[in-house]
Amino acid sequence: MTEADFIARLRGIATDPAARGLADDAAVLGDLVLTHDMIVEGVHFLPDERPQDVAWKLVAVNLSDLAAKGATPVGVLLGYSLAGDAAWDAAFADGLDIVLRRYGLPLLGGDTVGVPAGAPRSFGLTAIGRALAEGAPSRSGMKPGDRLWVSGTIGNAGAGLAMRLGEIDANETCLAAYSRPQPQLTLGQALAPHVRAMMDVSDGLLIDAQRMATASGCRITLRLDAVPLSAALLAVRPDVLDTRLAATTAGDDYQLLFAADPDAGAVIRATAEALNIAVTPIGHAGVGEGIVVIDGAQRVALPDRLGFMH
Amino acid sequence: MTEADFIARLRGIATDPAARGLADDAAVLGDLVLTHDMIVEGVHFLPDERPQDVAWKLVAVNLSDLAAKGATPVGVLLGYSLAGDAAWDAAFADGLDIVLRRYGLPLLGGDTVGVPAGAPRSFGLTAIGRALAEGAPSRSGMKPGDRLWVSGTIGNAGAGLAMRLGEIDANETCLAAYSRPQPQLTLGQALAPHVRAMMDVSDGLLIDAQRMATASGCRITLRLDAVPLSAALLAVRPDVLDTRLAATTAGDDYQLLFAADPDAGAVIRATAEALNIAVTPIGHAGVGEGIVVIDGAQRVALPDRLGFMH
Repeated sequence: MTEADFIARLRGIATDPAARGLADDAAVLGDLVLTHDMIVEGVHFLPDERPQDVAWKLVAVNLSDLAAKGATPVGVLLGYSLAGDAAWDAAFADGLDIVLRRYGLPLLGGDTVGVPAGAPRSFGLTAIGRALAEGAPSRSGMKPGDRLWVSGTIGNAGAGLAMRLGEIDANETCLAAYSRPQPQLTLGQALAPHVRAMMDVSDGLLIDAQRMATASGCRITLRLDAVPLSAALLAVRPDVLDTRLAATTAGDDYQLLFAADPDAGAVIRATAEALNIAVTPIGHAGVGEGIVVIDGAQRVALPDRLGFMH
Repeated sequence: MTEADFIARLRGIATDPAARGLADDAAVLGDLVLTHDMIVEGVHFLPDERPQDVAWKLVAVNLSDLAAKGATPVGVLLGYSLAGDAAWDAAFADGLDIVLRRYGLPLLGGDTVGVPAGAPRSFGLTAIGRALAEGAPSRSGMKPGDRLWVSGTIGNAGAGLAMRLGEIDANETCLAAYSRPQPQLTLGQALAPHVRAMMDVSDGLLIDAQRMATASGCRITLRLDAVPLSAALLAVRPDVLDTRLAATTAGDDYQLLFAADPDAGAVIRATAEALNIAVTPIGHAGVGEGIVVIDGAQRVALPDRLGFMH
């Protein structure tokens, strides 16, 4: 039983509509939006990562799921493994305090367990949110003809990880994108009434777009040349096909990927502009399945690895 | 920073009233009751425990927290660590399916992460419930003069663990109490309007009673000779002081411990009788702090270890 088999088995158990087939960013039970994401040392964060940043990331990745459903977070529950390193734990608690204050979010409860020293650190967080009265957009509502959009820029966090690993010259913008991702809560709440499908970009733009295509039963055509890249990224990597493929398969962006009727374009642009956040059309949905990537007029062969599989 | 220091630090963060000072079985946010408990191999379950039983226990310990708040569970989120043992994972999924069907409870979502083979298995579950219109009883509402009650019998699960470890002759009742604890959801919902304080007995009757005393700012006098023991326990252990101290410090009972005005005694007995569940007065609250244990007319010295500390 692989991880995919195990999740397939859980899908067979999770038949309640609120679970959304375990194929969405969060569960939606009445007006409640519920998510639980874990992060594991060596898988989701580096062993030498600052504990304050690990706490930030644990909260941010969960809030990003709520953002993608247009939800307003109301609190979190923490599952914490104490591995016998008091200084590390104290710094984690400091970081938790900082990120929860930043988002005005109560720590409601949770559990703390001791684990043997040397075991990889593993943390879980449950984030609880309230959906808008209009409901919470799913990943599966995209229709043929819809335009596909992404917020912000893509690839900064992936470059930040490469900088952490010493692979490229470092800059603060990309390092911060990697270590302190910003969940797009305000944007998600503002966009939710105007989109047909929305999700966050956590594992890589291509793999996440493919997931939206599969959930919606459409084919996505994604324009690689339209994917917004930051000046900070372009300062360390030239704007070539390889850079764009690396940016769209790297993960940890925590931007919003959403599909909307082309007629909603004006209201979407105005909504984002009012928040001073960039949104960029990067493709469209058609009849079919899967994802097609084009660069200008050229079709680009899909890389073997569309994103971060874990 | 010990575990106690770390939790004290978290208490400094968890200042929202919904968190109840991280000193209750669950958070209570409006009509929502929220709990997240983890179980770790070698700490909360034996390495050779059946995976179906581990799944049962993970769900049951969380539902027991909801039971103690008189809440009706509405769903769970699972945090699961895949350690590369496919047969184990498949059996866990089977057990999860069984326990969720037993309680008519949807699996809403969660997360699955791979961890290195050989690391201790660690699982988290978030259970979400709805409180009664009357609210959710806390651990802190007990008043001097209140009577202290416990449901069911105490010590079966502790004897079941001793049987699993080959320390005493086995019987099915105690083994089942250990491996398939029964959260007292129906009783908790029925009792909640009539109690001043309620919690579940998870770590041992004495330590849990001490926690209620501390939370309520009262002294509890607990009559060891009044603690209800099952025929199955008495069949393998004689009814002597040591048996009673072992039973009240063993943990994993998942019975309800509650305090109520003595005038509520009749309605409490009638409520429990209607459900065919035993409830037994085992002590009372007075002015002061901590816990005093008596056996007949004799005061009993508290054991060094009042319960399961983890």
